[in-house]
Amino acid sequence: MNVRIPILKLYDYLLVSIQWELDDHTAIQFQEDLLSKIHQTGAKGVVIDLTSIDMIDSFIAKVLGDVVSMSSLMGARVVLTGIQPAVAITLVELGIGLNDVFTALDLEKGLEKLQSELGE
Amino acid sequence: MNVRIPILKLYDYLLVSIQWELDDHTAIQFQEDLLSKIHQTGAKGVVIDLTSIDMIDSFIAKVLGDVVSMSSLMGARVVLTGIQPAVAITLVELGIGLNDVFTALDLEKGLEKLQSELGE
Repeated sequence: MNVRIPILKLYDYLLVSIQWELDDHTAIQFQEDLLSKIHQTGAKGVVIDLTSIDMIDSFIAKVLGDVVSMSSLMGARVVLTGIQPAVAITLVELGIGLNDVFTALDLEKGLEKLQSELGE
Repeated sequence: MNVRIPILKLYDYLLVSIQWELDDHTAIQFQEDLLSKIHQTGAKGVVIDLTSIDMIDSFIAKVLGDVVSMSSLMGARVVLTGIQPAVAITLVELGIGLNDVFTALDLEKGLEKLQSELGE
């Protein structure tokens, strides 16, 4: 079965909730899907909610870092929400460059952050 | 792999986007997940977006009808959005009782409908 992560469009934003651990194929598919959805919709921001993820491996961490950089290049700000301790540790230990990413506690706060940063 | 449909909580509402055809097991799992999420969060409304679904079989149609009725019993209004022609035909031909369901064109309009119906 070809599993994809659903990407919801809400006004100028895309919302994604990752609710299970991704395998490598699904992660790459997600990266492609998200970038083409940004292109299609002209979304100005993306919220990726990781609340349900309590651990990530180095490959997924890298894909996540790449998604953030690629989305920024395409003009969409990314907010990561609900990052749990072990996920934060993995990201930092691997030196994944999340400098230009916003973070927030949950989906609502992530959306609010985007709205305030994008001046609406 | 245990595939689940992500359910996003946004303020008082739950958002679900079904972006691939469900198999029977995933559909039943979704029904359970949604009802327990309504219970956990006290959500007042649910938007289920079917934009990407161009056809459903009779089992999935029945599960969908059941989800709507069960959610209503639990106090959450359901809005189905993006129903395509073949999906509408299946639902009506099978006599799935969608009398007390709202429908709307897309996710945004679905949320607006909930907000106006629930008087906010």
